Amino acid sequence: MVDKSQVVEALRKVVDPEIGVNIVDLNMLRGIRIRGKSVSVTIALTVPSCPLVDKIKADVEDAIRGIKGVERAEVQFTSMTEEEREEIFSRFDPRKVVMKLPKMGIRHIVAVTSGKGGVGKSVVTGLLAVNFRRLGFDVGILDGDLTGSSIAKIFRMDRVVIDSSGITPAVTNLGIKILSMNLILERAEDPVIWRGPLINKALKELYLGAKWGSLDYLVIDLPPGTSDAPLTIFQAFPIDGIVVVTSPQELVGMVVGKAINMAKRMGVRILGLIENMSYFECPKCGERMELYGTSRGDVVAKRQGIPFLGAMPVDPRISRLCDSGRIENYNSPLFTKIAKKVLDALNETRIPPVMPPMACSTGICKG
Amino acid sequence: MVDKSQVVEALRKVVDPEIGVNIVDLNMLRGIRIRGKSVSVTIALTVPSCPLVDKIKADVEDAIRGIKGVERAEVQFTSMTEEEREEIFSRFDPRKVVMKLPKMGIRHIVAVTSGKGGVGKSVVTGLLAVNFRRLGFDVGILDGDLTGSSIAKIFRMDRVVIDSSGITPAVTNLGIKILSMNLILERAEDPVIWRGPLINKALKELYLGAKWGSLDYLVIDLPPGTSDAPLTIFQAFPIDGIVVVTSPQELVGMVVGKAINMAKRMGVRILGLIENMSYFECPKCGERMELYGTSRGDVVAKRQGIPFLGAMPVDPRISRLCDSGRIENYNSPLFTKIAKKVLDALNETRIPPVMPPMACSTGICKG
Repeated sequence: MVDKSQVVEALRKVVDPEIGVNIVDLNMLRGIRIRGKSVSVTIALTVPSCPLVDKIKADVEDAIRGIKGVERAEVQFTSMTEEEREEIFSRFDPRKVVMKLPKMGIRHIVAVTSGKGGVGKSVVTGLLAVNFRRLGFDVGILDGDLTGSSIAKIFRMDRVVIDSSGITPAVTNLGIKILSMNLILERAEDPVIWRGPLINKALKELYLGAKWGSLDYLVIDLPPGTSDAPLTIFQAFPIDGIVVVTSPQELVGMVVGKAINMAKRMGVRILGLIENMSYFECPKCGERMELYGTSRGDVVAKRQGIPFLGAMPVDPRISRLCDSGRIENYNSPLFTKIAKKVLDALNETRIPPVMPPMACSTGICKG
Repeated sequence: MVDKSQVVEALRKVVDPEIGVNIVDLNMLRGIRIRGKSVSVTIALTVPSCPLVDKIKADVEDAIRGIKGVERAEVQFTSMTEEEREEIFSRFDPRKVVMKLPKMGIRHIVAVTSGKGGVGKSVVTGLLAVNFRRLGFDVGILDGDLTGSSIAKIFRMDRVVIDSSGITPAVTNLGIKILSMNLILERAEDPVIWRGPLINKALKELYLGAKWGSLDYLVIDLPPGTSDAPLTIFQAFPIDGIVVVTSPQELVGMVVGKAINMAKRMGVRILGLIENMSYFECPKCGERMELYGTSRGDVVAKRQGIPFLGAMPVDPRISRLCDSGRIENYNSPLFTKIAKKVLDALNETRIPPVMPPMACSTGICKG
């Protein structure tokens, strides 16, 4: 006997060709009826008379017929209410998914994310950039955390130059180009009390307005959460992949799981997982302790089906160097290894994802 | 000789009667001219023909005349462009500032904030509620962090009941009423991929829709940042005050400074500062270490002019209890003291702040 959950799982593989997200996550699946070996499903289309309906119908039928024990598949269509459509579009705005910002001549863009705050995204961002730079690459950092900017401080950068020709990023000792909201504010403790729309606009303007010059790698530091800033960067920025940072705490793992699932739903490539604060060695007696629970980054990565990049200890040296703006002086063979794994993943030859057709965004559907 | 910075500082004491924020932060101060003992300033009004202009004029003149060495004060008015006004309203929406949500019969509402993620807001929220409850009060927790909800996990709560009459919060062993996004989601790792407007709407609906019953204290756990969720809670929720959580890292202190400045600008009462992760004692050799830099919560609090509530160590017991959902089993005389200080601050007799008149919000200004 076929089970409803089998049908749901099968339909998770059917992707809306316009939005690029599977139809279950898009809340398009509205009904499943199973009678013996016949399965009938109801699908709500975002736009009632979309010409892509045939493509969706064929994909749904194929997916259902692929379930063991199913002989007949039937698809019925309904369409979303204005409200439902808006809710979907606010999450997965198809126009923005398709119309990525230009790559500005930057070879690779990688975002560092977590979902959870305080796990070390900014430190990982900084160390990735430093290690890429040490290998001789041209590297930039965009601090995507506008309300909690940390990047300027850990590199002890002061100001960027803004004139009519654009924003000239600050340049560190090693030669990394840096752009952060805190380089624009008058005082580092000035709050950026902006709602989402302003945050999204500013993110795009910082990226597009900066004179990056030629860059091999741009590393973007993301704020916590799965709301505006990460959503805009996942949707509109031409990122090649993300690095996810977690800590051993189960609580953290749960929230980080949200960010991983967000990336998966949005079709963003996950380069791998780094576990920070995995352990601590007492500098006096050498005792090795798990301050935040048992390290299990490798297990989490395996369960999520993403590469595990490595575990970093709690290291008071990092805090000290970051607080004094000297992150570029931090040497760790362990992190160098992690950075190389990220480089390898970025440079792996991959079949580029098929760009979803723009049909419904271009107005063809209206007829 | 009078100095411009003296004039700016004096005008920081003049509050726009409609918005409830000082005119300097509102970007209303557009020019200062000093000629001997005469000071002339230009003020941009949000609305050109507002009847409150006389009140603002008088306040500005008084403030300037209060500066030593000034004999004559003159005020000229201009008005903001549509764009400037919108920017201000997106930050300080005056309608929302004035029209707070009802208090729902709850005696005291306190929000736990930080600006920075991962410093222990949820743990502090949980421990405040637990300690209030142990003293015999009726206590509730609203998890205001919709995208990174932690509260349900640390109390091992499962589900809330939602029916036509509203949301019935989950109740812990100790009898604390809990409402969190994770009690509504099907799986704890489901991401909440919402932009700001949806977050704000959901926050209000959770608060208003919950059957809190009679509560002495409602503790709200806020997400990091100074964008939508904290902004909505500061503006629209009838909170009595906030508790700010920081850690010794300078980097963290800087971001927490943003949150403190946000609260000050918005006229939110700060009950005090808690420093978390201040130190760690090796359980083997007893060595006391500063993992994240030198503890200086008291210094920060003093500099910010807010009470210092206490310093908490890195304690692997807390991580363990939180991960297993048993935060209610955590006992710490140190934290009990902190909780009592918060209670004392909340129960202090204070002159209630004068409610700003609603003039310009009610359309009177249009004429």
